[in-house]
Amino acid sequence: MRGQLDIDATAVAIRAGERRALARAITLVESGRSDHRAQALELLDKLGTERQALRIGLSGTPGVGKSTFIEAFGMMLTDKGLKVAVLAVDPSSARSGGSILGDKTRMEQLSRNPSAFIRPSPSQAQMGGVARRTREAVALCEAAGFDVILIETVGVGQSETMVAEMCDLFTLLLAPAGGDELQGVKRGIMEIADLILVNKADGDLKAQAIRTTADYAGALRLLRKRPQDPSDFPKAMSVSAYEGDGLGKAWDEMQSLINWRRENGHFDTRRAEQARYWFHEEVRLQLLARLTADQSLAARLAAQEAAVAQGRVSPAKAAAEVLEGL
Amino acid sequence: MRGQLDIDATAVAIRAGERRALARAITLVESGRSDHRAQALELLDKLGTERQALRIGLSGTPGVGKSTFIEAFGMMLTDKGLKVAVLAVDPSSARSGGSILGDKTRMEQLSRNPSAFIRPSPSQAQMGGVARRTREAVALCEAAGFDVILIETVGVGQSETMVAEMCDLFTLLLAPAGGDELQGVKRGIMEIADLILVNKADGDLKAQAIRTTADYAGALRLLRKRPQDPSDFPKAMSVSAYEGDGLGKAWDEMQSLINWRRENGHFDTRRAEQARYWFHEEVRLQLLARLTADQSLAARLAAQEAAVAQGRVSPAKAAAEVLEGL
Repeated sequence: MRGQLDIDATAVAIRAGERRALARAITLVESGRSDHRAQALELLDKLGTERQALRIGLSGTPGVGKSTFIEAFGMMLTDKGLKVAVLAVDPSSARSGGSILGDKTRMEQLSRNPSAFIRPSPSQAQMGGVARRTREAVALCEAAGFDVILIETVGVGQSETMVAEMCDLFTLLLAPAGGDELQGVKRGIMEIADLILVNKADGDLKAQAIRTTADYAGALRLLRKRPQDPSDFPKAMSVSAYEGDGLGKAWDEMQSLINWRRENGHFDTRRAEQARYWFHEEVRLQLLARLTADQSLAARLAAQEAAVAQGRVSPAKAAAEVLEGL
Repeated sequence: MRGQLDIDATAVAIRAGERRALARAITLVESGRSDHRAQALELLDKLGTERQALRIGLSGTPGVGKSTFIEAFGMMLTDKGLKVAVLAVDPSSARSGGSILGDKTRMEQLSRNPSAFIRPSPSQAQMGGVARRTREAVALCEAAGFDVILIETVGVGQSETMVAEMCDLFTLLLAPAGGDELQGVKRGIMEIADLILVNKADGDLKAQAIRTTADYAGALRLLRKRPQDPSDFPKAMSVSAYEGDGLGKAWDEMQSLINWRRENGHFDTRRAEQARYWFHEEVRLQLLARLTADQSLAARLAAQEAAVAQGRVSPAKAAAEVLEGL
């Protein structure tokens, strides 16, 4: 990012759906510089939240065929006349320097599709930071008139929870698994999955995919119903991204779930709750940033944390001592 | 709580295992008064963390036979010569005014047992507050020389997560369920359960309990292994608190898990992580308390939260505006 952006002009260009303006604006919200941050807030505020896309969270460990799925699913949506954006929350990219979406050749067709926009994960050290930037990138894509936003995550650490807090429905992609080589669903994921898709239901793996689907359908039935779900959700089904099988049905299921939630008021309630969540998260992050910007305070915080971990002082007293000087 | 406590004398009495001093100290940590808070911190600091009990979290919805289980399990432990404390985290007691453990007649034998100490949940409006008080009560019971501390929760809202952050192992108690009347395990609980106990494996329900156990064992196998678990954990087994069946085996399993974790360093690591967690939670709570104590700031916080929920301002900008005056 060289120089300053003209915020008014950028807002107009984003609303007109200009991809270059959108890409530049996302770079702006990803920047850590304080003058960029101030501009980013101004831009987001100017764009507002009138335009809404359907935000779909998508999680899956490496090897389940996530790129193939996004490519095929995204192409199906654009064929229906929809504009599709793909964003990623990948905390590991901070370490590797790369990103799951960095190599666009993995989604060759979709990345050349004029109705699609693919953006790799920002390289940020901190999970909270990655999620904040991605959430703001989602807002920018909505303002740019995208109909569907896929938010991809690899499921490391807290990334799913963060993605769940910024999407309207959450999809978990799995591979078929035999009895002894279970892939292991990350604990906590059952809490947020609306739809479990067992991929690779083709060729030799088809029967295995169907069995795996039944296993997860059984596990989902053991969980308590959530008020924001129609009676037949969450559900598990098998798909083949490679053959394009089941993708239309998956899309139908997503729409049926979202329509139900819209009709029953859960869609808007969830968005309002998410906004509140991010507001409190921002208050926390900004307070913490102020604390750690104060070097003597940061040193006190680190020292007390170490003392607490060693059992030398109680958490409450340590916290009181850190905050005493404020 | 009338008057002031003599902190030094109270510390000595607690270390000597005097129940009345322990009860009074718990009342002190539950108090919202700032002078009581200061005394509580002094007392906790004086007592330190040298003595350690085994902290067992226990969750189960009403009707699974939790009181019967605690009564029978607790009596079995005291028969082995162990001192047992039972504490509760029950956020609903703030509404009902009562507590799951308020009526000690539900644990008639255990409540009269000189080796056992039962304390109902504090009546506090806020979940964070309840958990903080309970965690401090746990520290007091440890200093008083208890060997095992059972921390009970009804599983409303976030209470399980909070309890998981203050115990060494987490047990989920379930009732047998037929195909169509599944009780529904709260989502997220699979993430923290080390041991699932299907209760009421007696009489007519025995076969059903065994089937339910198999169902949950299957669901647990679908989850990814955690590094702090030996290869056969988490596990599901059936018990009958009423007939006392399986309680000895459950205790053996708990000890085997804890011994494994001690030998592999996970026990101490977890305690240190929990201490860090509560430290950051305390920093957050105490910062928030300072914010809301400032009336104009509290009003700004509420106004900005409403604006964010309505989509009138972005979370980041709203947070910046709240904190601007600091």
